[in-house]
Amino acid sequence: MDRALADIKVLDFTHLLQGPFATQMLGDLGADVIKVERKGSGDSYRAWTFLKYWVGGTESPCYMAFNRNKRSLALDLKSQEAKEIIYKLVEECDIVVENFRPGVMAKLGFGYEDLKKINPSIIYCSSTGYGQDGPYVNRPGQDLMIQALSGLTTLTGRKDAPPIPLGTGIADQLGAYNIVYGLLSSLYYREKTGKGQKLEINLYQCLLTHQLQEFAVTLNSGKLFERPQSGIAHPGQSAPFGIYQTADGYMCISVNPIPLLAEVLGDEGLIEYDNPDTLYDKRDEVFFRIQASVVKQTTAYWVEKMLEKDMWVSEVKNHLEVETDPQAVHLDAFTSYSHPTAGEVRTVNIPVKFSETPGDIRSHPPLIGEHNEEILRGLGYSEDAINVMKQDGVI
Amino acid sequence: MDRALADIKVLDFTHLLQGPFATQMLGDLGADVIKVERKGSGDSYRAWTFLKYWVGGTESPCYMAFNRNKRSLALDLKSQEAKEIIYKLVEECDIVVENFRPGVMAKLGFGYEDLKKINPSIIYCSSTGYGQDGPYVNRPGQDLMIQALSGLTTLTGRKDAPPIPLGTGIADQLGAYNIVYGLLSSLYYREKTGKGQKLEINLYQCLLTHQLQEFAVTLNSGKLFERPQSGIAHPGQSAPFGIYQTADGYMCISVNPIPLLAEVLGDEGLIEYDNPDTLYDKRDEVFFRIQASVVKQTTAYWVEKMLEKDMWVSEVKNHLEVETDPQAVHLDAFTSYSHPTAGEVRTVNIPVKFSETPGDIRSHPPLIGEHNEEILRGLGYSEDAINVMKQDGVI
Repeated sequence: MDRALADIKVLDFTHLLQGPFATQMLGDLGADVIKVERKGSGDSYRAWTFLKYWVGGTESPCYMAFNRNKRSLALDLKSQEAKEIIYKLVEECDIVVENFRPGVMAKLGFGYEDLKKINPSIIYCSSTGYGQDGPYVNRPGQDLMIQALSGLTTLTGRKDAPPIPLGTGIADQLGAYNIVYGLLSSLYYREKTGKGQKLEINLYQCLLTHQLQEFAVTLNSGKLFERPQSGIAHPGQSAPFGIYQTADGYMCISVNPIPLLAEVLGDEGLIEYDNPDTLYDKRDEVFFRIQASVVKQTTAYWVEKMLEKDMWVSEVKNHLEVETDPQAVHLDAFTSYSHPTAGEVRTVNIPVKFSETPGDIRSHPPLIGEHNEEILRGLGYSEDAINVMKQDGVI
Repeated sequence: MDRALADIKVLDFTHLLQGPFATQMLGDLGADVIKVERKGSGDSYRAWTFLKYWVGGTESPCYMAFNRNKRSLALDLKSQEAKEIIYKLVEECDIVVENFRPGVMAKLGFGYEDLKKINPSIIYCSSTGYGQDGPYVNRPGQDLMIQALSGLTTLTGRKDAPPIPLGTGIADQLGAYNIVYGLLSSLYYREKTGKGQKLEINLYQCLLTHQLQEFAVTLNSGKLFERPQSGIAHPGQSAPFGIYQTADGYMCISVNPIPLLAEVLGDEGLIEYDNPDTLYDKRDEVFFRIQASVVKQTTAYWVEKMLEKDMWVSEVKNHLEVETDPQAVHLDAFTSYSHPTAGEVRTVNIPVKFSETPGDIRSHPPLIGEHNEEILRGLGYSEDAINVMKQDGVI
């Protein structure tokens, strides 16, 4: 089997979630990703965690999630020697990705204009919170703030209660996918024409794009979405679309014909609401009426009964239940790799199945500077030169 | 300026959100996307809406959001003539994308094995809810159910309250990005080797991948996340990370040093909590203490005061406020196109900025079968032959 990006070299100046996730996706398909970190503490995501939990007692689950299939080169980025090393790497790499604030890379001598002189066909991607300029250029651009500024938080939760952000790094992740979209299309274009280019991505516009259909309403109608008073799952949607409490947990009832729902629930009165306008205008009333029936039986009872009729329903599962879900097991959705200090580490497997170029996990998320010597030797530095750099604190 | 995918032809059998968003991303970069629809009602997303609103009185905002830069060919897909047309199109296209349930395309004679015989270098992508086989193969796979089954809903909202799904089509959208990731990397590989391939994507694994860092915790520690009792924005995160009520609305306070926050809020007592363990264990208590200060002043007051100190904060905006946000205006984040029946339609602009191959909106979301004759003529069908197909109900 081949790897789709086996001949691609990526010089990766990214940190935190967005950039590292993007370069991990390239690494998963075979690209050689060199993660450039500052000497000492490295990627600041290495110090970030959830639930006060550290994998193997020492490693950040957040860092571990987004840095497999990379090699780490830890440098004093402000030293002259580091600059020479970077410039040598640029000569032989295809892609540079960075997610510093605007201007930081240029100040270090690693801006697009600098690197293009060394390698004219380079594809160079910068990602920021809000773009390279404009009134927010100096604002910090972390995921939660982008959720708040983009309108997204106003779509989730209940009317008269505060807006609720999603409990994942959604802006960062969409930023990562847009980086990949930009880079892979540029790679194809370069293959055809020999031309490199500069890409700019910002989390803010990625999260606006995520709301294409919600903005299609508001931009053209002037109408704002109003969060429901009930468990209706989208503020523009009609009943029954939502999460319902059962006798032993929760279940999801998506879009379904009301007569069918009435029949299964044994509540023929529901049919009175079976009109598109009513199902929107009285969605909370319909929700609570359905809820009153659903709570009488278990999730398993309803899911089985409704799936028999090909209705759009499912259980609501937590992460431990997902781990043993028969479909997750069938798909090999989880896998593991070994890590030098944390031992065997479990993770989510690559989601895309390629018949000719399957992705694979070839290496663990690197320790800080784990590949310093290997990478420097590859550039032709002698053992002596490497030792001098160690003594001088360059690496 | 060139377009990155100008020479790429996509035969697009997708409907609803995920597939159409993926092929729109290809169209935005210049690909010729032929949207194959069933004659009559077409893509079922044309009948889907929010807030009972129709753009220009007739068009679905949901359909409109994900179908620009495409041409529509509406056929009786079960007719022999339609099969011939599709096979002719396959000869000259690069990519086929479909998101029917498993087996539907093969039954129509349009499976990968069928089309590969006609065009061996075709890249063929199938996307489903849960994969092409396994215990859930016959389950319906709509976005909300995938959110519920993937664990995602348990991350959002409050303890002791029901799990809350995100009010957007997040599984579908991540599915779309994974389709693009698979297709563009396959396109690059084909350019190098001449080989096509088959890709399989499912919404379920895309949404598991979205939770890479949350699963890094649960898979390795066995611990589940617990939703907070307060406005803390991620169930694994410490205070102050959350959405807070101000005197006139809401604001977001992301990760910030507690001493700085104590100083700005004028609450020196906060410093007692400034310890990583305490900020997690007593996160709800810290949240409510900060909340008590924040509610005394307006959003503008706090955001200005905190941004002066480079703190990670922002306003919480709704979609109308986003529309006039100075950064959105600066970035040209919104744009418009004209549509034959709906007139001037506003939409979100392409988020990725390419120096050499900028994306553009060249055409409106097509009416059903709008390009039937143009496409058939392009395949060499005579006017007479086209008229016969009209009379026979093929188109």
